[in-house]
Amino acid sequence: MMNRLLITGAAGGLGTVCRDRLKHMAKTLRLSDVVDMPPAGENEEVVVCDLGDKAAVEDLVRGCDGIVHLGGRSIEDTWSVIRNANIDGVFNLYEACRKTGCNRVIFASSNHAVGFHKQSTRLDANALTKPDGLYGVSKVFGEAMASMYYDKFGIETASVRIGSCFPEPKNRRMLASWMSYDDFVRLIECVFRAPKLGCPIIYGASNNATGWWDNREVGFLGWEPQDRAEDYRAVVEQMEEMPAIDAPQVVYQGGVFTVDGIHEE
Amino acid sequence: MMNRLLITGAAGGLGTVCRDRLKHMAKTLRLSDVVDMPPAGENEEVVVCDLGDKAAVEDLVRGCDGIVHLGGRSIEDTWSVIRNANIDGVFNLYEACRKTGCNRVIFASSNHAVGFHKQSTRLDANALTKPDGLYGVSKVFGEAMASMYYDKFGIETASVRIGSCFPEPKNRRMLASWMSYDDFVRLIECVFRAPKLGCPIIYGASNNATGWWDNREVGFLGWEPQDRAEDYRAVVEQMEEMPAIDAPQVVYQGGVFTVDGIHEE
Amino acid sequence: MMNRLLITGAAGGLGTVCRDRLKHMAKTLRLSDVVDMPPAGENEEVVVCDLGDKAAVEDLVRGCDGIVHLGGRSIEDTWSVIRNANIDGVFNLYEACRKTGCNRVIFASSNHAVGFHKQSTRLDANALTKPDGLYGVSKVFGEAMASMYYDKFGIETASVRIGSCFPEPKNRRMLASWMSYDDFVRLIECVFRAPKLGCPIIYGASNNATGWWDNREVGFLGWEPQDRAEDYRAVVEQMEEMPAIDAPQVVYQGGVFTVDGIHEE
Amino acid sequence: MMNRLLITGAAGGLGTVCRDRLKHMAKTLRLSDVVDMPPAGENEEVVVCDLGDKAAVEDLVRGCDGIVHLGGRSIEDTWSVIRNANIDGVFNLYEACRKTGCNRVIFASSNHAVGFHKQSTRLDANALTKPDGLYGVSKVFGEAMASMYYDKFGIETASVRIGSCFPEPKNRRMLASWMSYDDFVRLIECVFRAPKLGCPIIYGASNNATGWWDNREVGFLGWEPQDRAEDYRAVVEQMEEMPAIDAPQVVYQGGVFTVDGIHEE
Amino acid sequence: MMNRLLITGAAGGLGTVCRDRLKHMAKTLRLSDVVDMPPAGENEEVVVCDLGDKAAVEDLVRGCDGIVHLGGRSIEDTWSVIRNANIDGVFNLYEACRKTGCNRVIFASSNHAVGFHKQSTRLDANALTKPDGLYGVSKVFGEAMASMYYDKFGIETASVRIGSCFPEPKNRRMLASWMSYDDFVRLIECVFRAPKLGCPIIYGASNNATGWWDNREVGFLGWEPQDRAEDYRAVVEQMEEMPAIDAPQVVYQGGVFTVDGIHEE
Amino acid sequence: MMNRLLITGAAGGLGTVCRDRLKHMAKTLRLSDVVDMPPAGENEEVVVCDLGDKAAVEDLVRGCDGIVHLGGRSIEDTWSVIRNANIDGVFNLYEACRKTGCNRVIFASSNHAVGFHKQSTRLDANALTKPDGLYGVSKVFGEAMASMYYDKFGIETASVRIGSCFPEPKNRRMLASWMSYDDFVRLIECVFRAPKLGCPIIYGASNNATGWWDNREVGFLGWEPQDRAEDYRAVVEQMEEMPAIDAPQVVYQGGVFTVDGIHEE
Repeated sequence: MMNRLLITGAAGGLGTVCRDRLKHMAKTLRLSDVVDMPPAGENEEVVVCDLGDKAAVEDLVRGCDGIVHLGGRSIEDTWSVIRNANIDGVFNLYEACRKTGCNRVIFASSNHAVGFHKQSTRLDANALTKPDGLYGVSKVFGEAMASMYYDKFGIETASVRIGSCFPEPKNRRMLASWMSYDDFVRLIECVFRAPKLGCPIIYGASNNATGWWDNREVGFLGWEPQDRAEDYRAVVEQMEEMPAIDAPQVVYQGGVFTVDGIHEE
Repeated sequence: MMNRLLITGAAGGLGTVCRDRLKHMAKTLRLSDVVDMPPAGENEEVVVCDLGDKAAVEDLVRGCDGIVHLGGRSIEDTWSVIRNANIDGVFNLYEACRKTGCNRVIFASSNHAVGFHKQSTRLDANALTKPDGLYGVSKVFGEAMASMYYDKFGIETASVRIGSCFPEPKNRRMLASWMSYDDFVRLIECVFRAPKLGCPIIYGASNNATGWWDNREVGFLGWEPQDRAEDYRAVVEQMEEMPAIDAPQVVYQGGVFTVDGIHEE
Repeated sequence: MMNRLLITGAAGGLGTVCRDRLKHMAKTLRLSDVVDMPPAGENEEVVVCDLGDKAAVEDLVRGCDGIVHLGGRSIEDTWSVIRNANIDGVFNLYEACRKTGCNRVIFASSNHAVGFHKQSTRLDANALTKPDGLYGVSKVFGEAMASMYYDKFGIETASVRIGSCFPEPKNRRMLASWMSYDDFVRLIECVFRAPKLGCPIIYGASNNATGWWDNREVGFLGWEPQDRAEDYRAVVEQMEEMPAIDAPQVVYQGGVFTVDGIHEE
Repeated sequence: MMNRLLITGAAGGLGTVCRDRLKHMAKTLRLSDVVDMPPAGENEEVVVCDLGDKAAVEDLVRGCDGIVHLGGRSIEDTWSVIRNANIDGVFNLYEACRKTGCNRVIFASSNHAVGFHKQSTRLDANALTKPDGLYGVSKVFGEAMASMYYDKFGIETASVRIGSCFPEPKNRRMLASWMSYDDFVRLIECVFRAPKLGCPIIYGASNNATGWWDNREVGFLGWEPQDRAEDYRAVVEQMEEMPAIDAPQVVYQGGVFTVDGIHEE
Repeated sequence: MMNRLLITGAAGGLGTVCRDRLKHMAKTLRLSDVVDMPPAGENEEVVVCDLGDKAAVEDLVRGCDGIVHLGGRSIEDTWSVIRNANIDGVFNLYEACRKTGCNRVIFASSNHAVGFHKQSTRLDANALTKPDGLYGVSKVFGEAMASMYYDKFGIETASVRIGSCFPEPKNRRMLASWMSYDDFVRLIECVFRAPKLGCPIIYGASNNATGWWDNREVGFLGWEPQDRAEDYRAVVEQMEEMPAIDAPQVVYQGGVFTVDGIHEE
Repeated sequence: MMNRLLITGAAGGLGTVCRDRLKHMAKTLRLSDVVDMPPAGENEEVVVCDLGDKAAVEDLVRGCDGIVHLGGRSIEDTWSVIRNANIDGVFNLYEACRKTGCNRVIFASSNHAVGFHKQSTRLDANALTKPDGLYGVSKVFGEAMASMYYDKFGIETASVRIGSCFPEPKNRRMLASWMSYDDFVRLIECVFRAPKLGCPIIYGASNNATGWWDNREVGFLGWEPQDRAEDYRAVVEQMEEMPAIDAPQVVYQGGVFTVDGIHEE
C-alpha cells in the first residue's frame, strides 16, 4: 500500500472511476484536474492544476509514491491544446518525478499511437508506432519521454495504450478495443504490485474475442483481463449498422480518428 | 530537378554543406535559418525564419517542391529551446507542407532517438526507439509527426537518423557513427530521385567497418555510402585515449548524451 | 443475414453438415455438387454443377452474396481429377465472383498444403507452404488464386487449412488435427460477420491440447473453437496402436498423405 | 559436366541466350520449344514439344541429367494458355523427371509470384507469395509442385523468381529488377555445381543498387551477381518519364502486371 | 505402459514425488540415487549408484524403456561436485542409453540455464542460454549432450527447464517460476505418451499469472498445466517482504543464484 | 598494445601461426602448450602446462592482459581427453582469469558446436547450438562458461566458431568453411582493439562465396575478412571428387564429424 497515489485527470470519466476504485491502493489519494471536481472525501486530497504549469506540477507530485497519469487531452484537438496538456504536461510530470523522487507512473497512452495499423494486423509491444493524429503523436511523444526517464533516471512507467475504456462497448469497433473499468483497475493493481516494473508497453483491452493486441511481452505483470466485449455483441450490432468494407471504423485500429483532419485553432 | 528546394538550418554546419553541394538539385535553393547567413547568391533565396513562428514557416515553405529539414536544435538543450525549435517547429513545418502542397521532406532525425541502445546491438529500421535526452525525444516526436502526415496526407518523409556528420571522425565513437558530407549528399540525391519514397527510417552513416546500423530495409532507395571512417582510425586513436570499458562512449550508441542531465532553464 | 449463400460440395460430408447448420445465415441456401443430393427444402436451391464447367459456375454464383467453397476433390487423386475440380474449378469460381460481384468466400484449403512440415513445428499464418501431394499443391494454387483476386479485385477469401473435420477424431493424428463440426460452423459465422475480412489464412482445428497450429494472426476474426479432441483420447488410443516413431502419421503434419505416390490415370 | 542438359523454351529470348552460353555445362544440349528454332548444331539436339503433351514431355526429359526450364508462357495470357503451358506443363515436367530419374531443375519462376508486394518491402526467401495475375499464380503453383517433388521424391529444384532478364534495363522499374544475361548464366552454373541443392527460392536480379530482394538465405550457393542496373540509369531516365507517385510501376514489385485484368479467351 | 522406467535422483524431493506418482507408467519402477532411500516396494527396484561411475550407470540403465533423470546436483556447488554428477553423470547416462537401447529421457534441466535473462524478458524454446553459475552451465551442457545424442543416435530427450518445483511457492519469485508436483507429473505423462518426442526444450512452470516462459513451441506435446501460483499470493506476500527494485530476486530469472560466487573446493 | 598476451595451444597449427603473427599485439607473448615447443625467442615466454591442472593454469594466466585460448583438444576424441582439456581446462582458465584479473579472452570455439545444422541453413549469432559430437558438446560448454563469467564477473570473451583454419581449403566443404590465417589474425586484432567487447559469438570464416554464416550481429567489431576460398575452387575440385548428394560432407555443416561415433577409451 502506497502512502500517496496521485491521479491526474481525476475529474474525467476514467479519473472518476479511479477515484472510486483505487482507494485500497494508498493511504491518501491525491486527485487533480484542470477543472473542478467534487471536494475531497476521507483520505483524499483535491488539487486543481494545469499540467502545463511546471511549478504547479512539481508541487502536485511532491510527496506521492506513484501516479496514475490520466490527465491531458484525451481526444484530437488543436495543436495548442494538445501541446500544453500532452507535450508540456508530460515533460512537467516527469521533471516533477525526477525532482521529487516519485518513481512509478502509469501513463495513459492510447491506441491512437498505433492507429494507422490495420485491424487485421496483430500488434505486440514490439510494434512500430503509427499515430493517427496530433493526439496520437502526443502519445508517442509521451511514451518516448517515459522511455528516456527510465533509461536515464530509473523512473518506471507502464505505458498503457488504452483501447476504449467505457462502461460498455458502444460500437462495433469497440468489440475489439473495449477495456472494462474492472480490467483497468486490475491492471493498475498489477502495475503497482510488481517488484520491478521497468518501462513496458501494454495494450489496454479486455479479454475480447476479436482483439488486435497481444500482451505476451508483459506476461510478467500477471494481468489477466476478465471481461469480454463479446457479451455485448448483440446490443452493439443493434446499435450500429454494419459499416462499409472500406470505412475507417473497420480498416484501421484508430477508427474514425484516421480520417479526422488537423483541428485549426 | 526541382523548381525550389528549401534547406532549413542552412546557416549551420550541415546546412552550409548542403547550400554548397545541392545546387544541382533545384533551380532555386531557398535557404533559411534563425540566425543570419551569407547573402543570397545566384539561384538562391535567403530567408531568416524562426521555426516556432507558424505563419512564417508557412510562408517559408510556400512554393517549394522539397525540403531538407536540418533546422532546429541539434544538441541537448533546455526544454523551451527544444520545444520551440524541434516540437513546434516540426509541427509548423508539416502544417506548412500540408497547406502549400509540398510533398517530400528529408527530416534530420538523430541517432539520439535510439541512443540508449547498446553499441553491440545491431539496429535496423524496425528497432524500437530509445531516446537519450530531450533532444532525442524531440526526434522521436518528429519521426512520429512525419509518419502521421504520410499516412493521413501523403506527405513523404525520409527520417534520417544521422550519426555524426562532420568532415572527419573526431573520436573513437565516430569510427562507427560517422557520415561523410559526400555520403550525406548522395543520400539526399537518392531520396529526391526516388519515384516513390514513402516514409522510411534511414540510418545516416558512411560505410564504416565498425558500424551499428543496417539500412537493408531501405535498399530500394539505392543509397550506397562510399566513405569509411576506418581510413581515419590511426589519427583518431592518437587523438583520444581508450575510454574505460564502462564509459558511455563505448557502451551506448548515444555516447555521452546518455549521461547528460536535464538542462535547466 | 445474407440473401443467398452458396455452398459448393454440398453433397459431401462437410457439405451436408453445412446444409444443415447454416440455415440461419442466409434467406436462401444454394446447394451445389457434381453428384446428386437430396432435393431442395424450404429456402433451399439445389444445383448440380461441375466446377470445371466455366459457364455453369458463373450461373451458379450469380445472385449469391457469399460462398462456402467445399467443392472439388478433397483427397489425393489423379492429376486430371485434381486439375478439373481444384485447379479449373477454383479459377472458374473466382471468375464467376468477379463477374457477378460476389465478394466473400470461404475456401476449403487443407493441412495438406503444409503437410510436409513436421508435427513438432508450430505453424502460423506466415508459415511457408509445403504441400504433400497433388491435392496439397492444388490447395496452394487455390490460396494463391484467392490472394490475387483479393489484391486485384477486392474479393475477400478466408482460406481455411482444414485439419480433419469429422464427427469425432478417428486416429491419433486427429488428436491434433481434428476440427468439430460445431467449431467449423462457428468459424463460418465469424468469417461472414466480420466487417472486413481481407484474405487471411486460418488453420481449421478445434481447441486441441496437442495442436500444431497457431491462429493468433487472425485473432481479429474472434474465432474461439470450443471442442477438444482430448475428450476422445481414450477411445482413439484403443482404436489405433501406437505407430512406429518414424511412421508418417507421427512425423509429418500431412500424415500418410506424405507417403502416397502420384496416382496414375 | 553433365551428359545432357535440357533447355525448355529454347526458342525464346532467355532460351536463345542459354543455348549460346551453356555449351560448357554438358556434352549435349537438348533444346526444346513449342515453336521452331534454328536447327541443331554440334552437340545439340532440337526437339519441338508442347509442354502440355505429357507423353512428349516424358520423351523429352528422358536421358537428361538436368533441366533449365524456361518453357511455358512468360507473360499474362488467357487461362487456357497459362494452364496448358504453366500448369499442365509443370506437372508433366516433374512427372517426367520422376519417371526418368532426372533430379535437378532450374525452374524459371517470376517476380510476378510476389508482384503485389510493395517496392518498399524487402523480400527474402521466406516472404509469402502475392501473385499479381494468372501468370503469377501459375508460378506459385510451379514452386509448390517443385517443393512437393523435392520433399516426396528428392528431385531438386532452384526456383528462380526472375526479375527482368534482358540485355539492358528498359525502364525505371528495371533499375531494381534487372538481371543481366551474364548474371543469369553465373546463377545456372552455381545451381548445377552445388553438391546438394535442395529446393531453394532465389530472386533473379543483378547487383542493383535499388534492389528489393535479399538472397541471403541461399548464400550457400555462392552466386555473386556482378552487373549493375545503375550503370544504365542515365539512359533509362532519358527513356522513361518519371511515373506518377501512385503509378503501379513505382508502387508494386510486379509493376503494370498488377493492373492488368483477366485476359478473356 | 513401459516395462521399466528408471528414476534417477529418486531419494530427493522431486524423486520421492515421482516414486510415488509414476507407478502407473511402468510395470516396474527402477529407483536410483547416490544416497540410501526407502527399500523397494511392490513393482520397484532400488539401486544405489553414483552417476559418475560409468560402468554402474550402464548397469543401471540396462533394461529400462525410459528415464526420468532427476539425478545430479540440483543447486550450485563446487566444480568437482558439479562435474562428477552433472557433467560426467550426463555423459555416462547417454552412453548407457546408446549401448543398451534406451531411447527416451526426461532431463531435469533448470531455469538456471537461462538465469541471467531478465524477468521482464519473455523466453521460448528458441531463447539463447544465459547460465547463472556452474550449476547452470552444467545444465546447458546436459541439453547439448541430449541434442547430440538425438541428432546422432536418435535418443529422444525432453529437456525440462524446471522453475521451482515444490509443494507450494515459497517466495515472490516463485509466483512466476513455481511448478506444482501435479503439473510436473502431467508433463511426464505427456512426454512418454507422445508418439514422437524429438528433443524439445520445455519450461517447467505451472499456469502462473506472472510467468516468464512460453511453451508454444512444444504445443504438440499437449501439456496443459492446471495449477496456479497466484492462489498462494497472499501467503507468499506475507512470508517475504518486497525486495528492493534492484535485488536479484526481482531482476533476473535465476534470482539469487546470479549473485552467488564460485564455490571453492 | 598489451603487456602480456597468453596464447594457449601454442604448439599446434593455429598456435604456431599466432606465435608468429601476434608479436605486435603485446610486449610479451606467453606461449603455452601441453607438449614441447620451440624455445622462447625475444619477447616470448614458453610454459608447458596441462590445462587440466588448475593450479598450473592459474600460474599460467597470472600477469596476462589477454588470452587467445586455442588450447584443448581440437577434434573428436575419447571423453576423458575431451573432458580434461576442454571441460576442466575451460573451467580452470576462467577461474584463473577471475582470480588474476585477466578480462579478455578469445575462445576457439568451433563450427562443430552447430555441426548438425544443414549447410542450406544460414546461421547467425542467434542460432541454437546443435553439436555434432563430444568435441562439439565441449565447445557449447565452453561458450556457456564464457557467457556466465561475463554476466557474473565481467570477463569478456569472443567465442569464435572456427570453420576450417588452414593455409588453404583442402576439400569442397572448406570452400564454405575456410578461414585464412590472415583473416584470423585480423579478427584477433579487432577483438583486442574493441573498447568494449561483451561476449559475442563470431563465426570464423573468410569472405567465402558459398558461406553458411552471417556475422552481422557482431558488425560493431569491424572484422572484414579479405580472403576467399573461391580462389582455390579449381584446385579443390581436382582434389576431391563430388560427394554423393546425401554424404555428410554436403548435408551438414559439421561434415563427417556428424557420422563419427563415440570414441571409446
